[in-house]
Amino acid sequence: MAGDLALLAAVSLISALQQGRFARLVGKSRMKHKVLPPAVTGAPEFERTFRAQQNCAEFYPTFQTLLWIAGLFCNQELASLLGLLYMYARHKYFHGYAESASRRLMGFYLSLIVLACLAILGAAGIVNSFMDEYLGFNIGKKLPKMF
Amino acid sequence: MAGDLALLAAVSLISALQQGRFARLVGKSRMKHKVLPPAVTGAPEFERTFRAQQNCAEFYPTFQTLLWIAGLFCNQELASLLGLLYMYARHKYFHGYAESASRRLMGFYLSLIVLACLAILGAAGIVNSFMDEYLGFNIGKKLPKMF
Amino acid sequence: MAGDLALLAAVSLISALQQGRFARLVGKSRMKHKVLPPAVTGAPEFERTFRAQQNCAEFYPTFQTLLWIAGLFCNQELASLLGLLYMYARHKYFHGYAESASRRLMGFYLSLIVLACLAILGAAGIVNSFMDEYLGFNIGKKLPKMF
Repeated sequence: MAGDLALLAAVSLISALQQGRFARLVGKSRMKHKVLPPAVTGAPEFERTFRAQQNCAEFYPTFQTLLWIAGLFCNQELASLLGLLYMYARHKYFHGYAESASRRLMGFYLSLIVLACLAILGAAGIVNSFMDEYLGFNIGKKLPKMF
Repeated sequence: MAGDLALLAAVSLISALQQGRFARLVGKSRMKHKVLPPAVTGAPEFERTFRAQQNCAEFYPTFQTLLWIAGLFCNQELASLLGLLYMYARHKYFHGYAESASRRLMGFYLSLIVLACLAILGAAGIVNSFMDEYLGFNIGKKLPKMF
Repeated sequence: MAGDLALLAAVSLISALQQGRFARLVGKSRMKHKVLPPAVTGAPEFERTFRAQQNCAEFYPTFQTLLWIAGLFCNQELASLLGLLYMYARHKYFHGYAESASRRLMGFYLSLIVLACLAILGAAGIVNSFMDEYLGFNIGKKLPKMF
């Protein structure tokens, strides 16, 4: 079973490492600006870096959920690609936010678009799965015959 | 494989959208009370809304873990129903907390009860799975014969 | 399918309960130091306890992701063992941090080492899975023959 999901798992693993990287950069920013734990306020740059990481961490379980549902129920390759795009968006968001609050927006909006796409893929896959089970109608199997 | 889990995935997907909705409501509250990122303090109503969303986000991975384990190892339909109930509890919690700190409690306690139920279902399913593997005794298969 | 993953699920379930325990200890610390929600600042001991729990919650999805990928793609027993070790590290971290900021370090570093081990296991399993699929070469199947 696991073998069929290797692509999804690879993307998921890399995204976990990205989360670790964000956490490490917050630690570095702590040292640079001398913000000792448990304080989370201090230099504005540290506060922005910290909020950026917090926001990424908050959204991470939502991203993982949508990634795996889209990949399992719709299309693994497409979901994995969107997963990579999400990581790129979060990369832009994090480093943009660290520079200034307004520079976080582009990455943030892109990340939301990717999440919406993953949700649509996942929802389509689930609806198809229900139709297949209860109505015996599977659009995924019929599509190839149409072309 | 994915088809058997469509119900669980549907609940999981909706819960991910709920998380996104909570985050959006915090954004709206930011604008209403003019709390500019990265600040997380300001008007009491904003602070309550922010804490409500933070608490939901913190508990979300725990919920997902328990939901899927209960669904996979015990009963998908029951776990999915509890998942919907959890979302209802979190809805009450979030909107109650936004109004006043004391009005968060009902939803919060309900969410804890649901999590406890999911944990019990999951634990029962795992114990049954171990007994089946090591002792050849599966209560899930024996139950139908008793009635 | 679920039966093969009972060990991983058991570790995952216990880790979810640990997260719940950390959240409850923050609640107790709130009452002890009279920090009323939504405030998150007050007595230094409360602030440390709160930050400890926040950090555990932030890292939890990353841990879960790495645990399941390592377990599914490489070795369930080894991943489960590392999962237990992670929980021990987080236990030390949380209770150390509640006492003083410097006492959080040992548990924290141990938790990072465990995450790194899980990531390496997971990555090795995924690479092997790709090689098996595209090159027909599976080191996991060849290893037993070597000895």
